[in-house]
This record gives sequence, C-alpha cells and structure tokens, in this order.
Amino acid sequence: MADDKKITKRADDYSAWYQDIVLRAELADYSPVRGCMVFRPRGYAIWENIQRDMDRRFKETGHVNAYFPLMIPESFMKKEAQHVEGFAPECAVVTHGGGEKLEEPLVIRPTSETIIGSMYAKWVQSYRDLPILINQWANVVRWEMRTRLFLRTTEFLWQEGHTVHETHDEAWEEVVRMLGVYRSFAEEMLAVPVIAGRKSDSERFAGALTTLCIEGLMQDGKALQCGTSHDLGQNFTKAFDIKYLGRDGKQAFAWSTSWGVSTRLIGALIMAHSDDQGLVMPPNVAPEPVVIVPIWKNDDEKALVLGKAHELAQALKACGIKPHVDDRENLKPGFKYNEWELRGVPVRVELGPRDVASSQCVLARRVSGTGKETVPLAQAATRIGEVLKEIQAFLFERALAYRKEHTTSVSTYDQFKQVLDGKGGFVRANWDGTKETEARIKEETKATIRCIPDDDHAPTGNDVLSGAPGKHSVLYARAY
Amino acid sequence: MADDKKITKRADDYSAWYQDIVLRAELADYSPVRGCMVFRPRGYAIWENIQRDMDRRFKETGHVNAYFPLMIPESFMKKEAQHVEGFAPECAVVTHGGGEKLEEPLVIRPTSETIIGSMYAKWVQSYRDLPILINQWANVVRWEMRTRLFLRTTEFLWQEGHTVHETHDEAWEEVVRMLGVYRSFAEEMLAVPVIAGRKSDSERFAGALTTLCIEGLMQDGKALQCGTSHDLGQNFTKAFDIKYLGRDGKQAFAWSTSWGVSTRLIGALIMAHSDDQGLVMPPNVAPEPVVIVPIWKNDDEKALVLGKAHELAQALKACGIKPHVDDRENLKPGFKYNEWELRGVPVRVELGPRDVASSQCVLARRVSGTGKETVPLAQAATRIGEVLKEIQAFLFERALAYRKEHTTSVSTYDQFKQVLDGKGGFVRANWDGTKETEARIKEETKATIRCIPDDDHAPTGNDVLSGAPGKHSVLYARAY
Repeated sequence: MADDKKITKRADDYSAWYQDIVLRAELADYSPVRGCMVFRPRGYAIWENIQRDMDRRFKETGHVNAYFPLMIPESFMKKEAQHVEGFAPECAVVTHGGGEKLEEPLVIRPTSETIIGSMYAKWVQSYRDLPILINQWANVVRWEMRTRLFLRTTEFLWQEGHTVHETHDEAWEEVVRMLGVYRSFAEEMLAVPVIAGRKSDSERFAGALTTLCIEGLMQDGKALQCGTSHDLGQNFTKAFDIKYLGRDGKQAFAWSTSWGVSTRLIGALIMAHSDDQGLVMPPNVAPEPVVIVPIWKNDDEKALVLGKAHELAQALKACGIKPHVDDRENLKPGFKYNEWELRGVPVRVELGPRDVASSQCVLARRVSGTGKETVPLAQAATRIGEVLKEIQAFLFERALAYRKEHTTSVSTYDQFKQVLDGKGGFVRANWDGTKETEARIKEETKATIRCIPDDDHAPTGNDVLSGAPGKHSVLYARAY
Repeated sequence: MADDKKITKRADDYSAWYQDIVLRAELADYSPVRGCMVFRPRGYAIWENIQRDMDRRFKETGHVNAYFPLMIPESFMKKEAQHVEGFAPECAVVTHGGGEKLEEPLVIRPTSETIIGSMYAKWVQSYRDLPILINQWANVVRWEMRTRLFLRTTEFLWQEGHTVHETHDEAWEEVVRMLGVYRSFAEEMLAVPVIAGRKSDSERFAGALTTLCIEGLMQDGKALQCGTSHDLGQNFTKAFDIKYLGRDGKQAFAWSTSWGVSTRLIGALIMAHSDDQGLVMPPNVAPEPVVIVPIWKNDDEKALVLGKAHELAQALKACGIKPHVDDRENLKPGFKYNEWELRGVPVRVELGPRDVASSQCVLARRVSGTGKETVPLAQAATRIGEVLKEIQAFLFERALAYRKEHTTSVSTYDQFKQVLDGKGGFVRANWDGTKETEARIKEETKATIRCIPDDDHAPTGNDVLSGAPGKHSVLYARAY
C-alpha cells in the first residue's frame, strides 16, 4: 500500500499511472475471474456516496426503485432486432441449473429493457397505469476483451431507469430530464464538467430512436462517456406488447425510455482530478473528506491529543461532515501524511500537543494549496466546511479550464489530425451526417463522434473530411 | 389490485392467503424466468428500509462494504469439500461468454466464501492486516425446485458478511455479535420475536464448524429461519491459503466467519403479522407508515383539504415520519381506505372539510384498534408518532404471545406428534444427539431441529424418540 514503490508519472504512461492509483489507493483489485474486478471498501464507499445522492435525485423527480431478475430468457433478447444485434455478442450465457441442462439458455442481463418490458406489459392496462417511473440498482454483465478497472469490466454495477409513458412528448421530456439529472450530478458531486448532446446513429443504444449523453474529458485528452438517456420510442413497447386503453377508448402502444450510469463514474473522477502524487477526491463523494492525524510521543500526549481529536470529530459530525481519526499506533505522522495524500483525502488536520496547548490545529489541503493554515480549534469545523467547498469548486474549475484549453474548432482534416495527435481533447468540426465519413474518420484517427452538442447550430462550413455540406457541428475525440 | 376478488382466508388455505397478500398488495410478482420473482416498488421499498437500518448496525459494529464478482470459477467451489457438496446441486452455471465456450465454467455465486477467500489470501500478510470486517450487499442464485415469493426463490437479494481474524476466540466473538445484531434487528424493526440458538450438524452451513441462527414462528405454526451466522473455523482459510505472519513471527492460518440475511425477511414479516383483511406492516419498515386521505366533494373543498393535508405531511416529516398524501382523483374515500388496509398501512389519517373547520383530523389504525380517534391538527404529528410506536410494540407482543402459546414441551413421541398435527409451533424435546434420530423424526413428522436454543441445559429426560439419554433440549418444528 504505502510502500516505497513510486506511482508512475502521467507523462510517462497514463495507463500505468491510472492503474497504480487505483491499486495503491486500495480502491479496487483484479479478481481471479477474467475481466471482473473487486470493489475494495474505499472504492465501494465512493459508489455508496454516488448512490445515496443520485437515489435522492431520482426520488425527487418522482421515481421509485424495484428489482427484476438477473437472468433473461434468450428468446426475450431476440424480440427487438437492433437490441439483440447489439448485445448478443457481449452476453454471458447460463446453460445449466440445478445439475441439469436448461431447456432454454438464460442470458445474464447486459441491460434490462427486455425482462422489464415483459413485466410492464402485464402491469399496464389503461392510461391510468401510466407513467411508470421505475429505477433499478443492479449488477450487469457484458463480456469484454480489453478491460480496465472501473472503466470497462465484464461485470459492473449501475442503475438503470425504465419508464413508460402515454405520449412520445412525455417520454422525450423524461429523457431530457434524466440527462439533466446526470449532468447536475456529474458537475456538482464529481466536479467533472460534462458536455451534453446526442449520439450519432452509429453510436446510439441498440434499440433506441435517440440516445442523449454526457461526455467528460480526461487529463490525457481522451473523452469518457459518463451517462446516457435513451428515447426508445415504441421499439420495445411493440416488441413486448405494452399497450394501454387510451383516454379516447382505443388501444395504443406506450412510449418508453431508459437511462443509466455505472461504476465507470468512479474511473471518471479518478482520471479527471488525480495527479502524480496519487488520488485526488472531490470532497462531495470522498470516502474520507477529512482525516485528523493526532501527533504524540508519549502516553500523556496521546491521551491529550486523541481527546481533542475526537472532540473535533464530533464538531465536524454536527456540521454534517464525516471525519476519520487516524489513531494507528507505531506509524510516524509523515508516513500517515503520505498515505492520505496518496489516497486523495481533501483535507488533513494535524493536531499535536503544542497545537492543543494553543487551542489550534493545522489544516493541509490535498489541492488548491495555499500552504498549511493554522485555525483556532473552536472555529475548525466551520473553517473545514468552507475549505471543502473551496476544494470542490477548485476541482471543477480546474477541470473546466482544462477542457476549454483542449477543445479546438477545426475546418480542415489536416488540422483535425494535428490536434488529435498533438494536445488531444475535443475537436469540433462540421459533419456531413453520413455513416461513411464517421467510419472513415474513426478508422484513420481512432476518433469518434462523442456527441452532437446541445448548441449544435446550422454549420456554415463543409464536412471536415468529405467537403460535402455540413449537417451538424459535432465533437470528435478519442475515447475510453 | 383493489378489485372485488376476496383474499383467501388463512384458515381456508394459508399458502393461497400468503400469495394473495403479496400479489394484491403489489409487493412482488412472478417473472417469466422460472423460480425468479420481481420485487415491485412497494416490496423493494421494504428491502430499502431493511438495508438502511441494518447497514447502520453493521457500520456501528466496525464493518465496511465491498463488492466481489458475481461469477465464481467452478474449481473454487471444489476447494472446500463440504462446501461443494452442499452447493453444487443448486448452482447455475455460465458455460458461454462473448460468443465462445469458456475454458472453465463459471458458477453464479450461491454464496461468496470462495471468491472472497481467494482475495483475502492476497490481502492478508501479517497480523496487522487483521481483522478484515467486510460485508457485501448482493444478489445470489440457488436453483430451487419449489419456490415461494420472498421465502424461497432461485435468485434472491441478501447481505453476506465475511470476516477474518487472528484467533478462533475473536472469530467466535464476531459470530455471536452478528447473531445479536440480527436478533435485535428482527425484534426491533420487523417486530418478529426470534429464538436464537445453534444448528444441529445436519442443518449447519456447508463448510462451517458451527452455525448460529434465529428462528421465527409464522401464524400457521411453521418456523422460518431468519438469519444465520457461521463459525467457519479454518476450513476456508486452509482451502484458500489465508495465512498471516503472527506476533510470534510464525506463519499461521487465520480464522473466518460469515453471516447473512436475505429478502426472505420480507416474507417473515408478512406471514407473522398480516390478517384476513390483507397486509399488516410494522411501522418501522413500512413503505408508507402513514397515509393521509383528504376528502372533498368540490374544488373549493379540495383546495382547502389538500392544503391542510400537505401541512400535516410537513409536520410529520419534521418529526422524522414519512407521510404519503393520497390525492388521487375520481376514487371514493371508502375505496382508498380499503386499498390502504389491504396494503397494511399502520395509520390512516382522514381529513375532510368539517375536520379542517374544527382543526382536527381522524386517525384509524390498521391493528390494535381502539376505534377511530379524533385529534387536534396541532397535535396530530406528535400523536401519530406515539401511535406508530404503540403499533410496533403491539405487533411484537402479539407475535410473542402467539409463540408462547405455540411452544410446547413434550416428553413422549405421541405427544410430539399430537402437538405437530394439532396446534403446531415449536416442540421442545430432548434429543440424544444422533443423526439417526433426527432423520427418522424428519421422515415421520416432517419436523426438523430448528435450533439448540441458547438456554439449552443438561436435559433430565431421555430422547423423545429413541429413549436414549438426552444430550440436548432442542426445538423441533415444521419449517419453511
């Protein structure tokens, strides 16, 4: 853990740097199951913080949670043509149960539109049963060849919202509303600025009419999709026969949506904020926003200092801030400081006998450092609350500045390639709207259309590759 | 839902009664996947309430959460001889992934001792790394032939604690501590009185030295296991090579425990408290502890009454009580009352224009009824808080009285059978400690040893069946 091995520098090998941070900060570990990871307690605590806040936002927007089966009959996957085409190659298949071969294989859910659709067909009879606004917190499995901790693993944790509506307008409102929830969440809690937009046809969800997304930018100039919200039209309601008796007395197919974010958000926040010293955690989702390190040399000092440390911890709790007192024996303060720095703790409080004598403590920030700050103990909890807010804002602003510096509008393909091979980031360019152009650019540069941003306007120029009239002004990037 | 179909009476068909309640109160539904159920929002909300409170108790006793892979290499299951014998027949097996046959099949976790053990072997080096106190909230799959909503399904939700310790004494302390947590939880939150004890060898967990359990009694006189806590000794630490460098400088195998409760607890509380009118929910885990039903005939009344209803809802929230205002249009109050009765809402508040004019409201209790009670609006929130506590206590006392009436000590096998075929319940009898006696009683009466209770004393009499000297005074019952 806090051994002598150095963390690889970002500039030397960004991938190795990321892996070093995840493993050394004990957020996750590789498992003996190919492509599957273990969420260690400090990594899982981030997910718990994400869940708590996001669940509140879902409930405030009228949603309730439910839980549907993990295993889906293979035939269900085949009912929506695009859906099976997109997901079948990624499925894990259960062929035996209870010692016998199954009559029909079961697929481990890669996503739950089909199994949930089959239940909604049973529950929806009349317009009075609509809308259904259900979310599920669950594990899903998508077979992956190349995996990366948090970002891409065969099994991952996520939430998937599945809603059904009377009209397409209502469904579309929901799709937009939930993308808004994701955007606010990413920016307010993870301090990751994101660009909202919609996917091109070739990048949208298998079975959707439209996929909206939020895209973040990592420090190596690569984009990361942070959440998606799908307008499923009537594709699944027709495949699963979700019909209702309308206000006009006629039977009609309902309209459905789905939306999800996953544990890859943890990868996003690590990559967006951390540095060569280790993890940097945004205070709002940090497992330990504040660590108090008491310093002592003998038993008398220990009793004195620990007493004050726990008093301060109580004061922090009263302010709604979760403190951790690092009272481990036989470790030097310097060792603890290094370890908490590696672990990305936003604020460290140092408290020694002389501090107690002067009724003060010393605050050290993980980032946005203005040097150490001495604070009277009586005001420490309030001041720490302020500092945490400052750090949260600082991280967001820093990431936003990075994104601004790394978003480049180009009008020629040479510029396009130059930027990608140079500083990287988002490249804004006109697109003629064809799959052919999109595919050729991906093949030649490895960049994909991350989204057609919300501020897409009728472009004045021509497609950056084909020279044909541009239909959209889009954001390209290499992506995770 | 609240249609005209009557709920089957308990006396007529207890199983049909239970199923009627679960389906009609919309707690759960059957799924198209054999043996798997759907947790509908009102059923899942109970699980969320259970999770929130239990998670708090786990954290207060020093545990943290983590998450381990769903799929376990088949070879891992075979490393502990008793474990594979117990679980292999129940496993669902993934044989294909990503379109190809796997080199080694993967089992969907029926429980996670093996996969977690393999990680602990990596994390534990020295006594300084101990204890590890980790819990996991997860889904598990155990192939079941005969299923019953919540009580026994192929997939279910649960928590599983997995801890490793330096000494057997410490591990044993943990096993006892967690059974205590389960017992307090069941009695305080679910209002289900339970008997704590240990399992006989033939009923203990596959791979454990000792299994402790809590057992509840349902209204049909059958017992229901509500939670188990296992002393795994060194069985798994040896199988997975979890060794540590001890304080004495020598390598030693660690000692491990595991403990779990599942969504079957929801079945327990339904069966323990509900009646022929429908569900009865203990207030402490009810999805809606309080429903306010506003009554109006015209728009003026509606505005007046809804305004007051939301004021009262605010006052309840301020007291930490979650209110639900049933403001649905076009439904008569009587219809709503019946529906909320079926759904087991502990307290219903009726609020009409004349009530508002007199600044009062009417409370109706789902159980422990003393008729309706008129309460001044200004005191309503406080009074409702008291009534909820009274109902919680009433349900526990009623279930406890039932258990006392249905616990019978017997000294002859004739009495034993008479009680089982008569009023049922727990039968306390002396046991000679042999597997043969236990098996014959099970075969002849379908009763199993539910536990050797904590108050087991050297019995004075002989075994109820064999007549050999009794070794333990045990509790037999037919069980779910």
